[in-house]
Amino acid sequence: MSATPVIGVVMGSSSDWDTMKNAADILAEFGIAFEAKVVSAHRMPDEMFAYAESAAARGLQAIIAGAGGAAHLPGMLAAKTVVPVLGVPVASRHLQGVDSLHSIVQMPKGIPVATFAIGTAGAANAALFAVAMLANHNPALREQLTAYRARQTEVARAMSQDLV
Amino acid sequence: MSATPVIGVVMGSSSDWDTMKNAADILAEFGIAFEAKVVSAHRMPDEMFAYAESAAARGLQAIIAGAGGAAHLPGMLAAKTVVPVLGVPVASRHLQGVDSLHSIVQMPKGIPVATFAIGTAGAANAALFAVAMLANHNPALREQLTAYRARQTEVARAMSQDLV
Amino acid sequence: MSATPVIGVVMGSSSDWDTMKNAADILAEFGIAFEAKVVSAHRMPDEMFAYAESAAARGLQAIIAGAGGAAHLPGMLAAKTVVPVLGVPVASRHLQGVDSLHSIVQMPKGIPVATFAIGTAGAANAALFAVAMLANHNPALREQLTAYRARQTEVARAMSQDLV
Amino acid sequence: MSATPVIGVVMGSSSDWDTMKNAADILAEFGIAFEAKVVSAHRMPDEMFAYAESAAARGLQAIIAGAGGAAHLPGMLAAKTVVPVLGVPVASRHLQGVDSLHSIVQMPKGIPVATFAIGTAGAANAALFAVAMLANHNPALREQLTAYRARQTEVARAMSQDLV
Amino acid sequence: MSATPVIGVVMGSSSDWDTMKNAADILAEFGIAFEAKVVSAHRMPDEMFAYAESAAARGLQAIIAGAGGAAHLPGMLAAKTVVPVLGVPVASRHLQGVDSLHSIVQMPKGIPVATFAIGTAGAANAALFAVAMLANHNPALREQLTAYRARQTEVARAMSQDLV
Amino acid sequence: MSATPVIGVVMGSSSDWDTMKNAADILAEFGIAFEAKVVSAHRMPDEMFAYAESAAARGLQAIIAGAGGAAHLPGMLAAKTVVPVLGVPVASRHLQGVDSLHSIVQMPKGIPVATFAIGTAGAANAALFAVAMLANHNPALREQLTAYRARQTEVARAMSQDLV
Amino acid sequence: MSATPVIGVVMGSSSDWDTMKNAADILAEFGIAFEAKVVSAHRMPDEMFAYAESAAARGLQAIIAGAGGAAHLPGMLAAKTVVPVLGVPVASRHLQGVDSLHSIVQMPKGIPVATFAIGTAGAANAALFAVAMLANHNPALREQLTAYRARQTEVARAMSQDLV
Amino acid sequence: MSATPVIGVVMGSSSDWDTMKNAADILAEFGIAFEAKVVSAHRMPDEMFAYAESAAARGLQAIIAGAGGAAHLPGMLAAKTVVPVLGVPVASRHLQGVDSLHSIVQMPKGIPVATFAIGTAGAANAALFAVAMLANHNPALREQLTAYRARQTEVARAMSQDLV
Repeated sequence: MSATPVIGVVMGSSSDWDTMKNAADILAEFGIAFEAKVVSAHRMPDEMFAYAESAAARGLQAIIAGAGGAAHLPGMLAAKTVVPVLGVPVASRHLQGVDSLHSIVQMPKGIPVATFAIGTAGAANAALFAVAMLANHNPALREQLTAYRARQTEVARAMSQDLV
Repeated sequence: MSATPVIGVVMGSSSDWDTMKNAADILAEFGIAFEAKVVSAHRMPDEMFAYAESAAARGLQAIIAGAGGAAHLPGMLAAKTVVPVLGVPVASRHLQGVDSLHSIVQMPKGIPVATFAIGTAGAANAALFAVAMLANHNPALREQLTAYRARQTEVARAMSQDLV
Repeated sequence: MSATPVIGVVMGSSSDWDTMKNAADILAEFGIAFEAKVVSAHRMPDEMFAYAESAAARGLQAIIAGAGGAAHLPGMLAAKTVVPVLGVPVASRHLQGVDSLHSIVQMPKGIPVATFAIGTAGAANAALFAVAMLANHNPALREQLTAYRARQTEVARAMSQDLV
Repeated sequence: MSATPVIGVVMGSSSDWDTMKNAADILAEFGIAFEAKVVSAHRMPDEMFAYAESAAARGLQAIIAGAGGAAHLPGMLAAKTVVPVLGVPVASRHLQGVDSLHSIVQMPKGIPVATFAIGTAGAANAALFAVAMLANHNPALREQLTAYRARQTEVARAMSQDLV
Repeated sequence: MSATPVIGVVMGSSSDWDTMKNAADILAEFGIAFEAKVVSAHRMPDEMFAYAESAAARGLQAIIAGAGGAAHLPGMLAAKTVVPVLGVPVASRHLQGVDSLHSIVQMPKGIPVATFAIGTAGAANAALFAVAMLANHNPALREQLTAYRARQTEVARAMSQDLV
Repeated sequence: MSATPVIGVVMGSSSDWDTMKNAADILAEFGIAFEAKVVSAHRMPDEMFAYAESAAARGLQAIIAGAGGAAHLPGMLAAKTVVPVLGVPVASRHLQGVDSLHSIVQMPKGIPVATFAIGTAGAANAALFAVAMLANHNPALREQLTAYRARQTEVARAMSQDLV
Repeated sequence: MSATPVIGVVMGSSSDWDTMKNAADILAEFGIAFEAKVVSAHRMPDEMFAYAESAAARGLQAIIAGAGGAAHLPGMLAAKTVVPVLGVPVASRHLQGVDSLHSIVQMPKGIPVATFAIGTAGAANAALFAVAMLANHNPALREQLTAYRARQTEVARAMSQDLV
Repeated sequence: MSATPVIGVVMGSSSDWDTMKNAADILAEFGIAFEAKVVSAHRMPDEMFAYAESAAARGLQAIIAGAGGAAHLPGMLAAKTVVPVLGVPVASRHLQGVDSLHSIVQMPKGIPVATFAIGTAGAANAALFAVAMLANHNPALREQLTAYRARQTEVARAMSQDLV
């Protein structure tokens, strides 16, 4: 992570890391420079605003933000930057992430948050989406992504052998 | 509203006013000085933070905040002030306010938002709750609230006559 | 708890205590005098009414009431007192507290219950809200609350170190 | 309704009458003596308790109670009497009666409320159930109920003619 | 169970017995003669119809029917008898009994099923409701029920001692 | 409809016909002999059983059954015949067909009901599925179905012209 | 499985096999020739289309497709073949299969997917439905299915002995 | 639209255009070259695959796909291209777009779809997100987006004047 990060991975609490490291792992696998931080919307609101405000100037091309329950982090970051924000609904204890999903995806007209599936699949997919965004302007990365998808297809293809 | 407001009534959009004026009406009925403003969490994030930051010093004793969909306004105000925040889930177009309710009530430990019913009943009740808070330190207001409740009982009592 | 309680913490069953002690712990941490009791709406209706009726005269400034399922306790207390009632939806066995939330938050116009998140977070937040109410008239307590929030911010800030 | 009522039909507000008159109509059709009253759990709590407390002595054999939203009326009546309580979830404005249903049906062990469908079908069925209860000890009424059901079957049977 | 049963306890599968024995236990505690049987609506439809058809003649005064998922048993019994049917939604594996609740409570106008809470609380309450029905015509049983409720109140009252 | 019907279209009430005629229209369009009847599970239980019992002998190759709310018709028909049953959840007044869907699709292991979408789309699709079943053994019908699908594709293709 | 398969059992991932083997077991029990494969809609889209395109020519009379979450497999197969497609919603990690159910059952008019219950019961029932389809043109199989149902009835009948 | 499109706006039916033109309007306002087409996943599966397969070579930098009900279009496009896919859940007739949302957002790990709010707000936001993506590599466009957001803030700020 010594290179200047182009993707920020942020989350509301360190307890979200079990989910969000799935995003970090994908970015690392693709060799994308990223940073990972806890930036709580509710307990660190000023840092959160500062994070969003500095994102464009620091060269971030996307922010992947995970949060659970009344998950305000992705939407509030989006309110403070024009850098694309990708939201990951972290599964909540009682409502299984339905609350997180509602809080992230139902943004009003004007401030978009690109939302992904509840939990680890969503975290990984947010990272893959970020890769796809970067790949639009990076032919080598697109090739890498295409190869990743091809390997994924191979793995799925081989799965029939697991059926008895 | 010439007196210094002790209650702030804020909402994410002027379209929320149909709901939130039910809070304003109650406050006016009780003679509570209040202010009513649009303070959009997503489109006016800095004003929103400034509003919350100045609330205590300006003498507000509660903020009643209404919002719909990914309703971040009450929770973000609460993150920036120790003045009690009362949240009103405004009914949303497609999910009838279930999304608003989840976004407002499911706050993480540490930053409370007192949440009321979806829609106009919730707006009126948030104001009545604010009156009850103020009444804890204002015997005349408590008497006024007690009388209001007594009249309410009378109205309910009389309702049986409407049944054929 | 030898001082005259200013906050009542009540619940429908002793099985709710695992949730509601999170409210008690916060109140104790802030040095607020409180009482904790089982007051079942359904199995002790007369005691419940008596509790609500005496609340104001006994000097309670708020009642924190937790209940699960068809959670009638907060709303019925609110029907019998003008003391502010804070409701905590306790997670239920089959519906995870969605039923408790609906039963507590969807009060009709006229009788407000300030509702918090399902489960332990809601219990803690109801207590923090009660502290914030009291702090409106108690500068030392407000300072204490502000310091609590600042420590909370510090803890959140330090969390980034937990991320690998 | 000059005869001593054996069934009480109560509701939280006169606005529930559109729903609850479907119960009254069925009782009238079967010649059951009944009374219909507004008894708001939240705005008339003492009258509600008095109503429940006197029910057995007044000879009521069942209470049909309709309410919407945080619908506490049926459950609180049940807490105060051993007379069977039949609950009707009135459709609510935003949540279509899902909140009413949860508040009525999810009673804790010990205090039963017999719950029927949301809205007018539930009101009619609560009354039909009350008739069936009375019919257990009234052969003429059971015959009447059996005939009612037979006519109902005839009407359903004839419906095929409406299909083109 | 040597006496002629006045209450039938039926269920769709022996796997529902863990839930439904809570009904049986209550009936036994009150000394009510009852029978308990598996009568699957889907796998024993003819026996189910025969059960319902013979219920009145056999002297059953209520049928308590538990079922999960597409829980058709209570409603179909109700379609075939004028004996009161009490439905218990058994918790289902994936939808936690929401499907069972919908299938039982949402009966169309004309064929009532008195529905109770999801799971064991609902089973116990269905039995207590049956007791209350019988008690309408049995002063000793009503006294017994009143005493049961009083003991229940005592137990709830004593619970405050469990709070630390 | 003079030919011996091979498909039965049944519904719980004539009010379901607005939905179910979408099934009838498809069958007519394909020249499939069918019958359409009201067979209420709750108000005509014996006729319903008789209908299911005679289905195989009468040559029905599928029964399309529509019902709303506690929609027991498809599942109970399936319990009484080995002829394939296709269920259509009719939209209900308060729960929009979520209750109908749960009551139809969540059948226990052993008695299948093939379930389609809520409302008119589901009715049409149940009929198209029935056509596809018949087409397995009828090359001309399969050709007809293939042509139908091709026209459908053409219509969809042409839709881009409607966009301004 | 040496005979030419008449039923295809496909699923989105080998992790769905725990659910889908319940379909395979039923088919094996009835002696129906089938094949079981992983055909991921999202990771093997071309193979999926090829599978659907060749289904009719290969003699498949039904495809049983299981998938979870955004479960596109059944619907996309149905879009590419006129062979009947039976969909099984596999339980998902966070939403318990509600998402799978919505993605499978809510198909638009024109492309039907016959949907069964969430999880293992649905998988078994999809297979039983396929058997019933085949039995329409195979008297021996129908007899076998009738006998299977009769045994099932016997097992249910015997269950009453398990009740204490 | 004479310029080579960089954004594709596609939808499952021309009836989705009322929703999706909100995306088109935003793109037009920003001067982004785009195309708008009906590409039904279920009725035009081959064209859909061809559309996705050619997207990268044709220079599309994002595809905005709207669909309702079992909304497979966004996910299936994503399965066939590495170009970023933005999904818009169109409100459905009975389930208000909850089904559409589940079908679009709950994609499995490996194939991301960036999901936006149900209905017109989501369509507009998908377009604004696409603009933000393009703006990462286009300073003039970023300035334009920043100005758009500033105007939006002004409009929100002025809204307080609408409150009486």
